[in-house]
Amino acid sequence: MSSPEPLAVPDPPGAVFLAEIREQPHALRALLEHDDAFARVAATAREHGTSIVRMVGHGSSDNAASYGVYAFGLLPRWTALRDSITLTAYYDAHLELRGSTVLALSQSGRTPDVIDYVTRARRAGAYTVALTNDADSDLAVEADDVLPLEAGPENAVAASKTYLNQVAALGLLAAHAAGEGERFAEGIATTAGLFEQMLPELETRVRRIALPFASVGRMFVVGRGIQFGTAREIALKLLETCRVAAEPLTATDLAHGPVAALDPLFPVWTIASEDETLPAVVEAAERVRLAGATLVASGDAADKLAGAAYALPVPSPPSPLLSPLLSVVPGQLFAFELARAKGLDPDRPEGLTKVTLAL
Amino acid sequence: MSSPEPLAVPDPPGAVFLAEIREQPHALRALLEHDDAFARVAATAREHGTSIVRMVGHGSSDNAASYGVYAFGLLPRWTALRDSITLTAYYDAHLELRGSTVLALSQSGRTPDVIDYVTRARRAGAYTVALTNDADSDLAVEADDVLPLEAGPENAVAASKTYLNQVAALGLLAAHAAGEGERFAEGIATTAGLFEQMLPELETRVRRIALPFASVGRMFVVGRGIQFGTAREIALKLLETCRVAAEPLTATDLAHGPVAALDPLFPVWTIASEDETLPAVVEAAERVRLAGATLVASGDAADKLAGAAYALPVPSPPSPLLSPLLSVVPGQLFAFELARAKGLDPDRPEGLTKVTLAL
Repeated sequence: MSSPEPLAVPDPPGAVFLAEIREQPHALRALLEHDDAFARVAATAREHGTSIVRMVGHGSSDNAASYGVYAFGLLPRWTALRDSITLTAYYDAHLELRGSTVLALSQSGRTPDVIDYVTRARRAGAYTVALTNDADSDLAVEADDVLPLEAGPENAVAASKTYLNQVAALGLLAAHAAGEGERFAEGIATTAGLFEQMLPELETRVRRIALPFASVGRMFVVGRGIQFGTAREIALKLLETCRVAAEPLTATDLAHGPVAALDPLFPVWTIASEDETLPAVVEAAERVRLAGATLVASGDAADKLAGAAYALPVPSPPSPLLSPLLSVVPGQLFAFELARAKGLDPDRPEGLTKVTLAL
Repeated sequence: MSSPEPLAVPDPPGAVFLAEIREQPHALRALLEHDDAFARVAATAREHGTSIVRMVGHGSSDNAASYGVYAFGLLPRWTALRDSITLTAYYDAHLELRGSTVLALSQSGRTPDVIDYVTRARRAGAYTVALTNDADSDLAVEADDVLPLEAGPENAVAASKTYLNQVAALGLLAAHAAGEGERFAEGIATTAGLFEQMLPELETRVRRIALPFASVGRMFVVGRGIQFGTAREIALKLLETCRVAAEPLTATDLAHGPVAALDPLFPVWTIASEDETLPAVVEAAERVRLAGATLVASGDAADKLAGAAYALPVPSPPSPLLSPLLSVVPGQLFAFELARAKGLDPDRPEGLTKVTLAL
């Protein structure tokens, strides 16, 4: 009797997503090996006479761009905006683009309307830079310059390390444009270390918290200023991996309407950071509590939010602008655990593909 | 025996909101009486050397600003952005604001952080304009110029006519900046007439459709380009008056993640317009249908969306940029009817006040 073929043991659901979440400190360090490229592109942007930074990208890339608004605004004091791809690529509006630096964010470098936007912006006199994991992609070829994201192959459909390296890349580029690149790069390295230190306990804590949310169909995720991109990214993870209708809001958005929808079955994830926005975030959390909704407190100032049912704090990094590199992680882990609690596979959300080529 | 005191008959729930929805054509015509003020402010913005338009506001005002991005991009070809109030008013970032025109949108003219933003922007050399219903408000006093919204007293907590007049005001100002003010003003007048013609049948149609949605807790509202502001405004009405977790998405956003959350209990309201974005919107609607979700087709190209369970078309106005003045109305009426079907009072959403002074 011949011995049986060994059974192929399939990976447990979400194994790829979890592995990539854990790889993020490594990915941050890989990005830092290209620090000189960031310094060079920042210098070119200065020589180009940049007064506006136009960021384009979809999904997680657009969430990272929300962070870029603050990184460029606070460091070189440049106006950075999440530009409308539709205006340039669909409506063919010919805006004045000299004096603009375009940052095109695409994991694959194959997003068609992002490539189309870059082609048109370059023709109109903008300095165009591709931030992508694939330095040979069509996007990289089309742009004037390429900054490698160096997140390595990302196989889970839901992005994690690409998002984190996009945030770090935008921060590093903004810091170089402000002559503070060296200090910021050191800050990223320190933050990668803090990430590794916090991870084991955070994973345990999130595992205990996720299960009670298995019947939740909708959530708000509140973050303000430099944490608004974090709120958007956590909401997107919950939508795509857990089928939760999660909407990102600023603390002020919440008061202008959405607070009316709250009830005890409507949890609110709130990200608090030690910066000038903290009083507004604390006040928003208080409104959430008064509405009887379940409050999840996260961020490096999670302990400042009174009445939270659950707390998922993260350490304080060397400077506030590095905080989004840590504060997104509880959300990534929560999406992983909640998807599994709901019997979903976070590696393969129904109806999604890794590279969105159409539309 | 003395005759009894007459009983005070309370208004039925939502009576104020409905009355204000119906007043909108009148409000549009009142705005047009100030056409010369719009021409003058557009000329001043040109003399100021405007290259960037920075719009600030919360809630419905911020939704109108989403429309402004396209109005200024397509007419005078200026870059217009929904600026971060947080960056300037909380983080005190000193951006270069000479060459900027600031449009501050506030129904009451009393929103504290919008006033704070205008104070700082004016000090930094921006040309600041208040768009408000109260020409004597603190905001109006603080700004260099005032454009009256002329929506008249708005008593329902959920904005309707203020939003519509903000959209018309941004379009009219952009048109004057492009030397096309006269034609655009005529277009608004024509559109006010179309509004009145469509209203009776639309009210009947919406009344029949709303009831099956009484158990719906979450929705997506999809709109692209000039209709993205419309999608945001309809989603906000559903949130604040109906407690529906309604998220606004562009057609492309939908494909990058949220499509994974769809199921037959997750309706998607889609706004289709006859413009360059129509193919992308048609494709998004097809994805919605394939995911088994209930599709509500609206907009002036609603008939182009195949497989819709419900259709709420609106007429085509003289030019695409006027279309948002009509396409928001089915959403306003739907929010009114759905709130009543759910036993809620759209005039007095719980936890909301008309003027948000805190945060």
